[in-house]
Amino acid sequence: MDLFEILAFLAVFLLLARLGSVVIAKFGIPGLVGEIVIGVVIANLTLGDWSLLGMLNIQLPDYSIGFSGNENYHIFYSLAELGVIFLLFSVGLETRIKDLFSVGKVAMLVAVLGVVIPFILGVAVILVIEHNMIHALFLGAAMVATSVGITASVIKDMKLTDTRESRIIIGAAVIDDILGMLVLAIVAGMDVSGGGVNITSIAITALVAVFFVFLVFLACMKLTPRIYDYMGKRRAAKLASNPDRPVKPVNMLAVAIIVCFALAALSEFIGLAAIIGAFLAGMLFADHSREWKLEPKIEDITVFLLPLFFINVGLQVNVGLFTSVEVLLISAVVLVLAIASKYIGCGLGARLGDKTLDRDGVKIIGMGMVPRGEVGIIVASIGLASGAMSSELYAVVVLMSVVTTIIAPPLLSKLFRKKYPTDKWATTEM
Amino acid sequence: MDLFEILAFLAVFLLLARLGSVVIAKFGIPGLVGEIVIGVVIANLTLGDWSLLGMLNIQLPDYSIGFSGNENYHIFYSLAELGVIFLLFSVGLETRIKDLFSVGKVAMLVAVLGVVIPFILGVAVILVIEHNMIHALFLGAAMVATSVGITASVIKDMKLTDTRESRIIIGAAVIDDILGMLVLAIVAGMDVSGGGVNITSIAITALVAVFFVFLVFLACMKLTPRIYDYMGKRRAAKLASNPDRPVKPVNMLAVAIIVCFALAALSEFIGLAAIIGAFLAGMLFADHSREWKLEPKIEDITVFLLPLFFINVGLQVNVGLFTSVEVLLISAVVLVLAIASKYIGCGLGARLGDKTLDRDGVKIIGMGMVPRGEVGIIVASIGLASGAMSSELYAVVVLMSVVTTIIAPPLLSKLFRKKYPTDKWATTEM
Repeated sequence: MDLFEILAFLAVFLLLARLGSVVIAKFGIPGLVGEIVIGVVIANLTLGDWSLLGMLNIQLPDYSIGFSGNENYHIFYSLAELGVIFLLFSVGLETRIKDLFSVGKVAMLVAVLGVVIPFILGVAVILVIEHNMIHALFLGAAMVATSVGITASVIKDMKLTDTRESRIIIGAAVIDDILGMLVLAIVAGMDVSGGGVNITSIAITALVAVFFVFLVFLACMKLTPRIYDYMGKRRAAKLASNPDRPVKPVNMLAVAIIVCFALAALSEFIGLAAIIGAFLAGMLFADHSREWKLEPKIEDITVFLLPLFFINVGLQVNVGLFTSVEVLLISAVVLVLAIASKYIGCGLGARLGDKTLDRDGVKIIGMGMVPRGEVGIIVASIGLASGAMSSELYAVVVLMSVVTTIIAPPLLSKLFRKKYPTDKWATTEM
Repeated sequence: MDLFEILAFLAVFLLLARLGSVVIAKFGIPGLVGEIVIGVVIANLTLGDWSLLGMLNIQLPDYSIGFSGNENYHIFYSLAELGVIFLLFSVGLETRIKDLFSVGKVAMLVAVLGVVIPFILGVAVILVIEHNMIHALFLGAAMVATSVGITASVIKDMKLTDTRESRIIIGAAVIDDILGMLVLAIVAGMDVSGGGVNITSIAITALVAVFFVFLVFLACMKLTPRIYDYMGKRRAAKLASNPDRPVKPVNMLAVAIIVCFALAALSEFIGLAAIIGAFLAGMLFADHSREWKLEPKIEDITVFLLPLFFINVGLQVNVGLFTSVEVLLISAVVLVLAIASKYIGCGLGARLGDKTLDRDGVKIIGMGMVPRGEVGIIVASIGLASGAMSSELYAVVVLMSVVTTIIAPPLLSKLFRKKYPTDKWATTEM
């Protein structure tokens, strides 16, 4: 381990990410798209023996040979993950439990249709092309994924977290993560056992996940209000008994971060994504997040960590794998289906679930669920590592995940601007 | 690599650190002492096969067999280092170049006497005890170390960065780091070559370090004021040409963090500590740090990273190595000498260099330079890894480093309170 190397790649990556973000923002496109593109460029920029990743001593994973990257990559990856964990935590900080309940029904419909339609289309297209059931099922599972981190970042940047559309997207993404986990468990189980699926174990997984979410909801409603109440009373009592001596407040940021990591760890442990736990942890503090200024403080942390997450999404694209016309054609077909199936599936769910939504609202929700981001890539890596996906199909899924993640944010941001016109969209200084 | 494990140890470490900090603060002792003690407890708490570190899958380094820790430890260590880097960066943000120049002479005297006296005493004590020149030289080098991070943390917590004593300590610590690096280079060179030292290479190292610091000072005086001037004019021009459209400001936090990492990397590369580069980077932004609110933002980041740094200092103490009475006795002697030599050496430097300092000011400076912290431990690890230190001497130096780091902050905080009495020292709520 070499501290110089770590600091060097952080400086270089953050500098390039900032440049990418600022340049692309000039065209009215959300900055994260520029950061992902920078990641793609970094991963594929080689001149003979020279490559930026090589100079920074970062070796990317190659799941086809079971290599998960070198140590510098792991440190980078950890920081990137912490970035998206803090992002979802800050989204949770802005989400009160009643806001989420008010969109419960429509979010459920959006999530279910946004899982079923992409899954069926994903399975169907591979069955038509290559008649391989395991490949088909894994592609279906990857199509199901939704990267809430990408959409959440756009929403937060535009300061539109408290719109109804944003709440529906966030709620649906949480449900989508649970459903996606189950789909993956079933698909992976069928792969390993060659057709048979352990229904009991999958049912337990599902129950544990639902129970976890339920417990946090319960804590939001019953537990935390009492704790805050007690803390307030204690503080008042201390002040009353000794009015001359100021009472140093509890460092709520430290407490919040500990709870965030604990729930993220627990969430990861039971098979959900860490970001879901982080989001739920944020909700525990939502009632007081303004008072304690938690959100701007968490955003200060993400300034330095989140660009690493977006770069990492881009890094996974290996242009060298797209050599044959066949792979390119399949990629194009899968990409179109990936966008259409989520857009239509989730849009349909929104329309059926909430009659009060106008046409633009429905479009926003459909588009907000399109990015597959890191979730699609994770499914693909699991498939590649277990042999259930070929290198070509892996490349196709990674491309689909990254391109949906690049295409959706500018369209989403356009739709949001149309529906919520304001003159606050500023030009960038640099 | 396992994200669950990383999140789990972060949650557990941060929770324990917070508890340690809050409990010890009840006794009027700076919280970081509690965090270091928690580190010592975590490292040594075992019940049969059970240990917290084992459960969290963290393996500490054992330099005597060339093992530098497992991957989880490296990720933890990287975060800890980023914590202290951000801390020194934020100290730099509060240090204008003219503040540093105004204490230049006295800081130089403090640093030189704070290097010479501990070195001589360190070498002498080992020569008396065991007549081993290499052991003696390495102990001397470890005695020279100053962990500015510890003192800086106390100063920042007490919001006393802009006192003359604080500036002298910070300035002296920067010079101390350069001198300490040279001492270590000479000692390590004598060890390897068996007596001969490559004067040319050490002179070049020294010149490069001084040149680096000089360049940053020059940039502070000449370059950055012009850049800020240009940025301000450009912004004004944009506003004038299009008054209805607000200009989105440059994200100065992102820029500052990139510069911080870049200078920290460069500093590490040329053989200085990364924190010195981070401190110098902070100085580049000091003129506008208030306006851009950089300091509170960086502090939000250190809330989550800095406790890991203090825990890591504590983790290095292996109580199991203090089995013989001899080791305990040597530890006691070395510890007393370590405290006395820095306190007297640096105090003398302060007294000789600045006649305007009162008795309390001199004491503050002497005490502020006592903590050896991670710097002493690093010297010891280098000695152990190269075979120039025995395991026993290594244990002695680690103990000396950690105990000076635990003893100095409460005394320093007491001295500061005496000299700068105020009613702002609050009780803690929990």
